[in-house]
Amino acid sequence: MKGAKLSKATLGRLPAYLKYIEAEKTRTTVSSAELSQALKFGEIQVRKDLNSISKSGRPKVGFDIKVLREDIEKVLGKGEPLSAVVIGAGKLGTALLGYKGFEEYGIRIIAAFDSNKSICGGSIYPMEELERFCRQSDIRIGIITVPSDHAQKVCDHCIHCGINVIWNFAACDLRVPEGITVSYENLALSLAHLALQLRRPNFSTEV
Amino acid sequence: MKGAKLSKATLGRLPAYLKYIEAEKTRTTVSSAELSQALKFGEIQVRKDLNSISKSGRPKVGFDIKVLREDIEKVLGKGEPLSAVVIGAGKLGTALLGYKGFEEYGIRIIAAFDSNKSICGGSIYPMEELERFCRQSDIRIGIITVPSDHAQKVCDHCIHCGINVIWNFAACDLRVPEGITVSYENLALSLAHLALQLRRPNFSTEV
Repeated sequence: MKGAKLSKATLGRLPAYLKYIEAEKTRTTVSSAELSQALKFGEIQVRKDLNSISKSGRPKVGFDIKVLREDIEKVLGKGEPLSAVVIGAGKLGTALLGYKGFEEYGIRIIAAFDSNKSICGGSIYPMEELERFCRQSDIRIGIITVPSDHAQKVCDHCIHCGINVIWNFAACDLRVPEGITVSYENLALSLAHLALQLRRPNFSTEV
Repeated sequence: MKGAKLSKATLGRLPAYLKYIEAEKTRTTVSSAELSQALKFGEIQVRKDLNSISKSGRPKVGFDIKVLREDIEKVLGKGEPLSAVVIGAGKLGTALLGYKGFEEYGIRIIAAFDSNKSICGGSIYPMEELERFCRQSDIRIGIITVPSDHAQKVCDHCIHCGINVIWNFAACDLRVPEGITVSYENLALSLAHLALQLRRPNFSTEV
């Protein structure tokens, strides 16, 4: 599978496939036609999704359920969840910390860090403990939810602590060295782009 | 501008252009080269961005600052903010309610609604008041942050209340009639897609 591309949309459908085949206790194969009908995804889509992560499919036979299940579980990290931390324990940070939806994809947000000691306690720790925590728990994913004028400093510190995948909610660009991945989540921009069609019905929008 | 496309990326750069030309008090024109250098966007990008929302540019002269400013302000809704409401006043809902970043794009999230009356107060109202509130304030944008098993019911009720743009944070598809726009924000999937490169370094990911 080296070099294979896995789109966000495909990844998003994997939990549904897994749930369907997990319920299947007696048969050994399942066809893309059956999955398509049960899950309301196009049949070509189903085949493309599953062939991109598994070699368990055979023409006219279908997918080997046992192998397919293992392959999906591998991608979704079943049994080996990744841990992530949030930096910035404001409303958004604590919302992410408490959100259960990440587990379906094998990710646990296990702690938040904040420079304001008065809000620390429970899973919220003072910033000074970030490095020790990351080293001890081998944290590779950091989620930045601090105000944008602090984001670069926090980002630099995350990288120093061994984090190499950063999900940035602050509305600013981050400078990072090679080998570090940053993904931007600008919620205000997402809503603004959606709202454009109310403001300027003549603008069509493209994603 | 009828039918023009405005990408999310272009929209995201408009506040920076506006900030730069707002500081310009004496000159009447600005070139794409100058904006490119000051803001670190590519010059072709700058020209493409601004020509997509304004006819104020002239070859070898640059953009008329006054007209360009008005055009950007129109797209960003300066002076005529749109109001939105959140349905589901849990942690994520209240985080969005309190988030100031939307104002830069001319959007205000003015109220949240929840079926749990014990958390109502301030800007958080009981669900029963949604319809009256939406009609009185001409709300067209609804943000759904309820658990996914309630999302369809809430969506239907939003549409009944006159909302026609829905931003859905619940991890489920919504059925809506024609003319209603739904945009999905699956935060768990976004993080999972980002984390894929840690789990399967051989998977490259595509957005």
